[in-house]
Amino acid sequence: DYESLDSIVIGIVGGDGIGPFITGEAQKVLEFLLKDQVQENKVRFKVIDGLTIENRAAQKAAIPVDVLEELKQCHVILKGPTTTPRAGDKWPNIESANVAMRKELDLFANVRPVKVPEQGIDWTFYRENTEGAYTLGSKGIHVNDDLAIDFTVTTQEGSHRIIKAAFEYAKKAGKTKVTAVTKANVIKTTDGKFLAIAKEIAKDYPGIELDDWYIDIMTAKLIDPKRRRDFQVMVLPNLYGDILTDEAAEFQGGVGTAGSANIGKRYSMFEAIHGSAPRMVEEGRGEYADPSSIMRASIMLLEHIGFIDEAKKLQMALDICGLYETKVSITGRKDGATGAEYAQYVMDTVQDE
Amino acid sequence: DYESLDSIVIGIVGGDGIGPFITGEAQKVLEFLLKDQVQENKVRFKVIDGLTIENRAAQKAAIPVDVLEELKQCHVILKGPTTTPRAGDKWPNIESANVAMRKELDLFANVRPVKVPEQGIDWTFYRENTEGAYTLGSKGIHVNDDLAIDFTVTTQEGSHRIIKAAFEYAKKAGKTKVTAVTKANVIKTTDGKFLAIAKEIAKDYPGIELDDWYIDIMTAKLIDPKRRRDFQVMVLPNLYGDILTDEAAEFQGGVGTAGSANIGKRYSMFEAIHGSAPRMVEEGRGEYADPSSIMRASIMLLEHIGFIDEAKKLQMALDICGLYETKVSITGRKDGATGAEYAQYVMDTVQDE
Ligand SMILES: CC(C)[C@H](C(=O)O)[C@@H](O)C(=O)O
Ligand SMILES: CC(C)[C@H](C(=O)O)[C@@H](O)C(=O)O
Repeated sequence: DYESLDSIVIGIVGGDGIGPFITGEAQKVLEFLLKDQVQENKVRFKVIDGLTIENRAAQKAAIPVDVLEELKQCHVILKGPTTTPRAGDKWPNIESANVAMRKELDLFANVRPVKVPEQGIDWTFYRENTEGAYTLGSKGIHVNDDLAIDFTVTTQEGSHRIIKAAFEYAKKAGKTKVTAVTKANVIKTTDGKFLAIAKEIAKDYPGIELDDWYIDIMTAKLIDPKRRRDFQVMVLPNLYGDILTDEAAEFQGGVGTAGSANIGKRYSMFEAIHGSAPRMVEEGRGEYADPSSIMRASIMLLEHIGFIDEAKKLQMALDICGLYETKVSITGRKDGATGAEYAQYVMDTVQDE
Repeated sequence: DYESLDSIVIGIVGGDGIGPFITGEAQKVLEFLLKDQVQENKVRFKVIDGLTIENRAAQKAAIPVDVLEELKQCHVILKGPTTTPRAGDKWPNIESANVAMRKELDLFANVRPVKVPEQGIDWTFYRENTEGAYTLGSKGIHVNDDLAIDFTVTTQEGSHRIIKAAFEYAKKAGKTKVTAVTKANVIKTTDGKFLAIAKEIAKDYPGIELDDWYIDIMTAKLIDPKRRRDFQVMVLPNLYGDILTDEAAEFQGGVGTAGSANIGKRYSMFEAIHGSAPRMVEEGRGEYADPSSIMRASIMLLEHIGFIDEAKKLQMALDICGLYETKVSITGRKDGATGAEYAQYVMDTVQDE
């Protein structure tokens, strides 16, 4: 409960590539929206900049210890994209910072809303965020040159808390259905467990129907204009949640338009879903990176810590700014607007409304 | 090489629910197309009907031994849908007959073409069909009530042969790109291996570019009208292939319109992708089941065993029959046409052309 806190600490994690550019602009907008609270010391910002791929590689850690310490001093975090190293790249075989942060801060619920009213789309995804196929990260086994093994781990508690969260949300939001998405016909042990727990929990919510589908056919159903209206709240193991939310975001304009909330009991983290676009920075165009997705994540952050009015203002301003087809129209220049100009435009819009 | 055989044995496996109805109709059409070859004993049909859920449950086997024996007496198999039991259902915890047959007959390549010319879609999927997340089937571990584990297994040979098959197809079909789809940034050990092998193999095909994407963003790319044209041949580990091909089939009219080829060194199996629709049979409407998808699979079967002309005739007839929006127009009756009437219509169309 954030109201009872003397002071809420918002961590701003730049990450890699365009990350520091866009999070910097989002921070400006947040400071503008929360200026009274900042003045009264009710809100503090803490910039954390050690979560870069260079630093992680040098320390051979998905999240260097000192960075983790700093993260734990925050209540909520706004995170820019981080570069994910992978075997065969020049980086060491360390886990994605994203995935590691979800585990280290126990951010068990990855919540992604997707709304396209004119297409009848109003979905909220509850993705399990700490286990499943992501549990062991880089700790799979190369038994020998011929044989590699990875593990999927599902726990009672891990499944229970995400499914419960989905049902609680459904109840609060007046939804009538929760859809569990698994591949329990093949991945029988872990997905079977997830589905069985969903059936148990559903018994406690008599007004809410539990529907279940396999992930393969779900990707088809989301596309079908007639069937996509059948879905409201979806709850999924980690990997299927990863896959289905990217597909779903496409109907709304692509992953660049979607924010993602990573919620735990103690900490919460909000992020843009797009990548770190290192090329833009190499070409010296980092300041032109579009901060609108991280600003969408900022709306979720504001709502989460109880600043509902401020969240609404930002939502409205972004919706208005979004009417501009490209950022070119903000400046009239051919190279569009910088992130700073976009942020200024958002703040002016908030002021004017 | 089927030409060198004295006689090709085509197994007809009814499966469950509407399976026996639709495979029966497909057999009629195949017998019609191949009547000369049947007369000369160059082609023989072998109906195998023990692959029902009742028999499998009674024998507690994904494929009963005697059925497997019969399957091995065939060169190619046309298979109807089979009911997949899952934990918590009334059936014992046995593996899907589909998955088991792919493993038992070593049908390592699941090939699914998806074509929608007017949308610029011309994709061929090469799905690894015997290992990955499907390797251990129901043999995951319930460590205790709190903990369940499943395994993903990737072998050098298993990855090599499917990736090689994809490149060989690309070369033969004059394609310029093969796209490997993994989640190697997170499932680092097994997917990392798959991707590394793809990079190795690509070196032997200088005219063909190897492109690689993660499965999450791929589901979004297929939807984007501008980006979907970027893909030609895709090669994927088992689970991602399962997911992405269902999504892809949706653009072509849904899984009901798609056939799937399961190819091995020794045996091959062709199937419709849709389910067994037990409800239709319970309601006494089994004979009304639509055999068009299993007939699409029959085209692939004919091509595979070298009857290219017959395959073309069937293709053309189905395309013409497909012009009828519903089967109602075949009979003028409100309840549409039975599978038998549809098959008759297909044969008449072949005759007339
Ligand atoms: C970057 C990657 C590790 C991450 C994931 O797989 O979860 C991303 O795709 C996401 O959905 O947040
Ligand atoms: C029925 C099921 C076991 C099967 C699979 O998962 O492979 C099906 O979805 C398919 O794609 O052929």
